[in-house]
Amino acid sequence: MTAVPSIDPRTGTAAEIVTTETTAAQVDQICRAALAAADPLNALGRDGRAALLNTLAEALEAHREPIVALADRETALGAVRLNGELTRTTYQLRLFADVLRDGGYLEATVDHAGVTPMGPRPDLRRMLVPLGPVAVFGASNFPLAFSVPGGDTASALAAGCPVVAKAHGSHPATSQLCFDVLEAAARQAGAPTGALGIVHGVRPGADLVAHPVIRAAAFTGSTAGARALMGVIDQRPDPIPFFGELSSLNPVVVTPAAAADRAADIGTGLAESFTLGAGQFCTKPGLAFVPDGEAGDELVTAIRDTIAATAPMVMLNAGIGSAYEKGTARLGVTTSPGTPLLLTTTAAGLPPEATEECFGPVMVVARYVGEADLFAALDTLPASLTATVHRGSDETRLPGDLTRRLLSRAGRIVYDGYPTGVAVAWAQHHGGPWPATNTQHTSVGATAIRRFLRPVAWQNAPAELLPVELRDDCRDLPRRVDGVAHPAVSAPGAP
Amino acid sequence: MTAVPSIDPRTGTAAEIVTTETTAAQVDQICRAALAAADPLNALGRDGRAALLNTLAEALEAHREPIVALADRETALGAVRLNGELTRTTYQLRLFADVLRDGGYLEATVDHAGVTPMGPRPDLRRMLVPLGPVAVFGASNFPLAFSVPGGDTASALAAGCPVVAKAHGSHPATSQLCFDVLEAAARQAGAPTGALGIVHGVRPGADLVAHPVIRAAAFTGSTAGARALMGVIDQRPDPIPFFGELSSLNPVVVTPAAAADRAADIGTGLAESFTLGAGQFCTKPGLAFVPDGEAGDELVTAIRDTIAATAPMVMLNAGIGSAYEKGTARLGVTTSPGTPLLLTTTAAGLPPEATEECFGPVMVVARYVGEADLFAALDTLPASLTATVHRGSDETRLPGDLTRRLLSRAGRIVYDGYPTGVAVAWAQHHGGPWPATNTQHTSVGATAIRRFLRPVAWQNAPAELLPVELRDDCRDLPRRVDGVAHPAVSAPGAP
Repeated sequence: MTAVPSIDPRTGTAAEIVTTETTAAQVDQICRAALAAADPLNALGRDGRAALLNTLAEALEAHREPIVALADRETALGAVRLNGELTRTTYQLRLFADVLRDGGYLEATVDHAGVTPMGPRPDLRRMLVPLGPVAVFGASNFPLAFSVPGGDTASALAAGCPVVAKAHGSHPATSQLCFDVLEAAARQAGAPTGALGIVHGVRPGADLVAHPVIRAAAFTGSTAGARALMGVIDQRPDPIPFFGELSSLNPVVVTPAAAADRAADIGTGLAESFTLGAGQFCTKPGLAFVPDGEAGDELVTAIRDTIAATAPMVMLNAGIGSAYEKGTARLGVTTSPGTPLLLTTTAAGLPPEATEECFGPVMVVARYVGEADLFAALDTLPASLTATVHRGSDETRLPGDLTRRLLSRAGRIVYDGYPTGVAVAWAQHHGGPWPATNTQHTSVGATAIRRFLRPVAWQNAPAELLPVELRDDCRDLPRRVDGVAHPAVSAPGAP
Repeated sequence: MTAVPSIDPRTGTAAEIVTTETTAAQVDQICRAALAAADPLNALGRDGRAALLNTLAEALEAHREPIVALADRETALGAVRLNGELTRTTYQLRLFADVLRDGGYLEATVDHAGVTPMGPRPDLRRMLVPLGPVAVFGASNFPLAFSVPGGDTASALAAGCPVVAKAHGSHPATSQLCFDVLEAAARQAGAPTGALGIVHGVRPGADLVAHPVIRAAAFTGSTAGARALMGVIDQRPDPIPFFGELSSLNPVVVTPAAAADRAADIGTGLAESFTLGAGQFCTKPGLAFVPDGEAGDELVTAIRDTIAATAPMVMLNAGIGSAYEKGTARLGVTTSPGTPLLLTTTAAGLPPEATEECFGPVMVVARYVGEADLFAALDTLPASLTATVHRGSDETRLPGDLTRRLLSRAGRIVYDGYPTGVAVAWAQHHGGPWPATNTQHTSVGATAIRRFLRPVAWQNAPAELLPVELRDDCRDLPRRVDGVAHPAVSAPGAP
């Protein structure tokens, strides 16, 4: 039995032994319980699951203090940040309750029988149904927002999918505490046994994605870790969707007009963004293109001044600290884990290492001479979760060209701001071309639920056998009927 | 240079040499042209691409006679079926023109800046954008509907993605003729050079999915072929989405009440369905559960009588004929390619071979004694594109239980009908859990376009830099604004 220790990153020592690694037999048992929970969870219906999510939010709030304290001990992220993270998660749970009540996420579509140029067409009705039990892999850097609690668990439960969470080894005690809180609350809200499960350990994580009942996996972590899990999935007789949230460079372009307008502000903002949370964000700006010349110089000075006033930070764990040392060494600098670092180069001489994510408080500034120089460098970048454009006031020509160029390499385009801080909203998108989230999906925002759903069509079904949302008399959700989009019609007397 | 022959399946001889296999250099050139076409194709806008699709439909109509004649010579599917297939394709092109004009497929979502429990939220706007150039692999069994012309090409072009088609070796002349017709028409409609490309040969197909500019692949064919392409994709530095339309068993359940009601009708219908097109449909019913007893006997007799009156058919090519011989041999019978075949067994003694697709005009009937017997057998089945339930008039209890059981294993549930015949409609779904279409998407129906799109969010973008569909004054498409679904508002004076 391998022990699972809880390491304090401030001291590097084990504060406690949380549990032992989940055995293969236990993984199997947890997965079977998840399968048994799938139908009852779905049967709770949209209102029942909305109530469940609100209960989970209340339970997390009720245990805010011990959860934040434990998470701080395991991650050194600090109480302010961790309180914000927990608020994010409770907000997200409540947003998915709204998504459920709205019902539009089901993509309910009704085509009555008719005659077409292809001949008679049967009655066809389509909507999305839950995939079944899913695996959620916790992230090192978001113990409360992308781990046992967080957007993946919230959106999967909202979809009607039982969740088996793989606790991150960097915060197993926090994961277990959150699980215990959520599991008790879920039972109280009427969720079936098995709707939530947890496993600890790397091999159990692989067992989980290999298990026949698991229908999808959501993963936030390294590309190497993702490739390993994808290899396991490829060996399944029935490969399943894999939603990876992996590395991201998040390039920033400052136009000459923007630099002329507000060099110092942008420099300070960039420095704050790339050092936030010790640079341990998937949306950390890793590379900024700054124009040559005086305004650009001023911007770089503002970055330097800000980080000079920033103390070295404790990183999440020893492995991440060591990767930071190696990553910055590849960029040609010797530093210690958690020490903020600015590196400068030119767009024309951009080294390939500067186009790879280096997790931690480091950013590369590439100075460019003209637009040709800038665009040639942009064409060498990998896809990212975000791309950012700082433009002069009312400047549109160059920002327009940049938008067109960056669109194929990013999931979100930020104007005159910073990529860290990913608002939870209906219109949010947190994904992008590889390496992000199966290219076509998001892990943040209302549409994150789409990852855990699949369409089904019913042909010539009697009304009694249809889901209520597809019956003729159902009007309380947005639907497409005979090709026309209709908004929800409130029931008489409803608010 | 490897020659690409056109084989007449009725004689087994080469009728002509169509071309030579595409070289690696040519694949590269075609892919680069596709990339160059991506922005101009997208810039045509929804109306421009709708006009393009209608022009393509007209061009196919204008060349209907030679296309159908050539396709018949290469596939032996017959003029009636092939004319229907071409009609399906032109109908589908026009449906996607409607989808474009409607605009709902963009999932346009606007969240104005506001204040949330998480603090201030920026202005966020999300919609779907084209993936970029995509590869479409033609199917042997649908030379006109799932090949160079067909739903994949129509939906990808609608999405704004240039298409490089991989011609199927079973009908290369038809593929090339259709390509020539479509390419000329596309140019005439203002599409950029490179919006359509074609490659011939197996290795060029692998080169295609390995090419850096290709952003997704749609494939209709064997599981083995799909696994090979997935292996190539996994080797890419940036794996891309793969939409496979692979084998499918398509189980049918006849309830005792249905058999009592209309045994002969169902038997005849099943026989017609599994022998249609020599059983070479991905929706061919491969396994039917029929109750024990007199009514079930009558049903089986009706199947036998119908196939006894059905002449052996020419299969699509020698490889498929030989696979049919091997597949039926695995089921314990010696037969010749294209000879209709009914095999009977019991649900309790269902051999594993009977739960695998055997492409061609063969169906297994499994007789069941009671519901326990039936449900135990259903639990052993793989997922399929479809599952069918024949029920007694007004019968709901058993059909309801069957629906719940079949839902996790099928993409479409058909009542009192037959799975062959996949209507093109807004509410259609042609997919399912593995091995179908990335589990979460469809290759038929309006939502097939979703395969070739990915979301992008714009944060605090000036109106001039937003796509028109995301600007505040755009009302001509369904959108979600500040969390509320709104239908399209017609412009004043519009119909």
